[in-house]
Amino acid sequence: MDWHMQKLKHVVDSGDFNRAAVDVVFQEALKMEKIRPGSPESRVLDGYIMSTLFYEPSTRTRLSFESAMSRLGGTVLSTESAGEYSSAAKGETLEDTVRTVEGYADCIVIRHFQEGSAKRAAAVASVPILNAGDGPGQHPTQALLDLYTIQREIGRLENIKVGMVGDLANGRTVRSLCMCLSMYPGVEVTFVAPDVVRMRDDVKDYLTQRGVKWTEVSDLREVAGHVDVLYQTRIQRERFTDMDSYNAARGKYIIDKELMKILQPHAVVMHPLPRVDEITTDVDADPRAAYFRQARNGLYVRMALLKLCLADKMGPDDLKK
Amino acid sequence: MDWHMQKLKHVVDSGDFNRAAVDVVFQEALKMEKIRPGSPESRVLDGYIMSTLFYEPSTRTRLSFESAMSRLGGTVLSTESAGEYSSAAKGETLEDTVRTVEGYADCIVIRHFQEGSAKRAAAVASVPILNAGDGPGQHPTQALLDLYTIQREIGRLENIKVGMVGDLANGRTVRSLCMCLSMYPGVEVTFVAPDVVRMRDDVKDYLTQRGVKWTEVSDLREVAGHVDVLYQTRIQRERFTDMDSYNAARGKYIIDKELMKILQPHAVVMHPLPRVDEITTDVDADPRAAYFRQARNGLYVRMALLKLCLADKMGPDDLKK
Amino acid sequence: MDWHMQKLKHVVDSGDFNRAAVDVVFQEALKMEKIRPGSPESRVLDGYIMSTLFYEPSTRTRLSFESAMSRLGGTVLSTESAGEYSSAAKGETLEDTVRTVEGYADCIVIRHFQEGSAKRAAAVASVPILNAGDGPGQHPTQALLDLYTIQREIGRLENIKVGMVGDLANGRTVRSLCMCLSMYPGVEVTFVAPDVVRMRDDVKDYLTQRGVKWTEVSDLREVAGHVDVLYQTRIQRERFTDMDSYNAARGKYIIDKELMKILQPHAVVMHPLPRVDEITTDVDADPRAAYFRQARNGLYVRMALLKLCLADKMGPDDLKK
Repeated sequence: MDWHMQKLKHVVDSGDFNRAAVDVVFQEALKMEKIRPGSPESRVLDGYIMSTLFYEPSTRTRLSFESAMSRLGGTVLSTESAGEYSSAAKGETLEDTVRTVEGYADCIVIRHFQEGSAKRAAAVASVPILNAGDGPGQHPTQALLDLYTIQREIGRLENIKVGMVGDLANGRTVRSLCMCLSMYPGVEVTFVAPDVVRMRDDVKDYLTQRGVKWTEVSDLREVAGHVDVLYQTRIQRERFTDMDSYNAARGKYIIDKELMKILQPHAVVMHPLPRVDEITTDVDADPRAAYFRQARNGLYVRMALLKLCLADKMGPDDLKK
Repeated sequence: MDWHMQKLKHVVDSGDFNRAAVDVVFQEALKMEKIRPGSPESRVLDGYIMSTLFYEPSTRTRLSFESAMSRLGGTVLSTESAGEYSSAAKGETLEDTVRTVEGYADCIVIRHFQEGSAKRAAAVASVPILNAGDGPGQHPTQALLDLYTIQREIGRLENIKVGMVGDLANGRTVRSLCMCLSMYPGVEVTFVAPDVVRMRDDVKDYLTQRGVKWTEVSDLREVAGHVDVLYQTRIQRERFTDMDSYNAARGKYIIDKELMKILQPHAVVMHPLPRVDEITTDVDADPRAAYFRQARNGLYVRMALLKLCLADKMGPDDLKK
Repeated sequence: MDWHMQKLKHVVDSGDFNRAAVDVVFQEALKMEKIRPGSPESRVLDGYIMSTLFYEPSTRTRLSFESAMSRLGGTVLSTESAGEYSSAAKGETLEDTVRTVEGYADCIVIRHFQEGSAKRAAAVASVPILNAGDGPGQHPTQALLDLYTIQREIGRLENIKVGMVGDLANGRTVRSLCMCLSMYPGVEVTFVAPDVVRMRDDVKDYLTQRGVKWTEVSDLREVAGHVDVLYQTRIQRERFTDMDSYNAARGKYIIDKELMKILQPHAVVMHPLPRVDEITTDVDADPRAAYFRQARNGLYVRMALLKLCLADKMGPDDLKK
């Protein structure tokens, strides 16, 4: 998508958002934080219908989108598990489902287990498609809310040091975040991961090509003292065939109260959630524990995107203002 | 239901709708096509609650009803799989469930695997019951939207030639449509079906008794050139015990770009959806491919029915106007 | 919760409601019965969002809460089966889920299979938690609607005779109702249960300590003639390992047309529903069959609680008025 030439039609790939586009979304998200129930701003999507078409369950993401639509006065048609049900089971293609559902709704939030599904949906849809995660592929609203949280917590996106911890091989969020951060000058990334789930070469090469400094270390304590953002992720049991390596990987990098002593006073801990035990609960009360604020930021970013897709006709002129 | 003596209380059986009733619904549906978000017409069901009570999943039908209610400003209480859950599993009768849910909602949309369920529900309900399909029984809103689509596409319901293709033995939609079409003079029906799923005698006898001309042929190309409406249906795998006959039946009558060359310029292709491969996707771009418009017409017809059941107190006087 | 010192923050345990608190809720519920669609009263929760977080299905309770929220103009984010899905399956704690969902909603209705879950949720939540049943533990809105129904049907809660029938060992509703009734002077309770599911000693001791007269008899007909309220419950098959004792227990105490001849003219039959065959359907038409009115009262009580939690800032001063 050439952002400067087109309106915000679909939200399919985080790579579609250049810095100007991200700025527009974030300015809007900031306004969303201030909307109060009953105010005129809480009514801008009055009469609009959003359908959530979830082929795999994701309660958190679904509720976040549905809350975003409701907070702007819109209405939601909800599908918790479109895959196991009816039309898909009878052999209907995603394209046909989208062409039917667009008759019922003004935009479609799609979650699918197959990479590229959102793009396929957008190719046939006459209403905006918002990608809520397509398998190992994209989850652009997560990437945007991660960026937004860094902006809100640290105050900038340039010249920041980010430590990424945990399952970096399979974690969709850290992979996307790396790519998004490469748009900003002076970003430095440090990877800390158990051997079996180290960050893959494709992302490392991407960063190198764009001049982003990255390093890989094995000592979490070494990293914790230098970063602005410590981004922890869950070790996903389903990725391991052997329970011994799972348990070794899992227990290796825990963020606990001890580690928080090393973290700089202005730094924050982020996590895409759900968490299991890779951040101990005694960290929650620390003001630098930003993960629940991060979850709430997802609401504001999704409100902003829904407003930009549906109510505003955002185009090149808006970006130049 | 004697339409001329009663208000539109329930929508249970397509046989309850005589020509006058159909006309009232269609006049209303036509108005629904013009409603815009935020207009006073989009608020006529403000404050009303519709509950969808689905004992078997049907995402398409549920979303269509829920969208219809939302487009008129009403609210929805949704149940995706009432059967597998709670009360029914504990042995509660449908009647008890209906008498409970009517305390929470102003109308109930019911989908059930058992024929006659909607009628049983209507017998005890103090709020309108709308049948969204009861097993091999009725699916009256589908029948009405099929009629409405023919009216909108061809311009009339009298003196039309309709070809019905595919699984005519088990297809609830084609069976209902035949019965509804018999109300209109000059209708001619041609059946084209694999041997194992030919139209049953009950419907043929019904048509004969009402003076509707029908024929049965084996060559789809012969039919395609003469009809106003070519109504294709899906061969339902679950009806076959033997995969060889399924595959034979399935591949026999396909509507593709070649066949569209034979179809008259004013004619249309309809399909209740979901489709598998009985219409090839290269037909979709043809303006005579009416199936996605047909799906959208379901929205307008359901909006009309909800308005007539809830907001209007439609009675004999309205029909005489 | 010290009701006189605190506002109505959470609804977790029926034991939190003293007589003054019950009175406030019931005064509000009475007003709720008169609210009509489109009136200003039907808009008091406009802009508020309620999330239903159901870890086990309970269609009836969920729809009742969702209807209550809708009848007051609020919006609902619905989760039919939070347990089987996503975050919980990945090992997220209830506390983390609540801290995430409170970012999306203004109150959370929680149903959980584990006793004490609602209390755990309330301990971390910054928004009101409403307990919709936590396993063998509490179901406070059911207890309140039972009390409300007695008040509405009999006209008082003091000096009443209540017969409790059926599965008294496992029935959460009868256990809670006993405890709530002990707040009122002059209450007499008679238990009628098959041997294997007799009322447990903890409740009996509780009643004795609070000076509530209770007896246990084996003849339902003896009880039926003397009580103001006959509260029937379902024998739960899942509690029996042996089908013979289940069938014996199940058929022993049936309320039918014959038994209704013994019941006093002013007395009523109650049942938490769903019913199987412990009340025959020919009783339904009897004006003393109060169970469907009881279900509807659940709506009014839940509307009242939602309004008190969200719109009103009910505190000690309100109780003194």
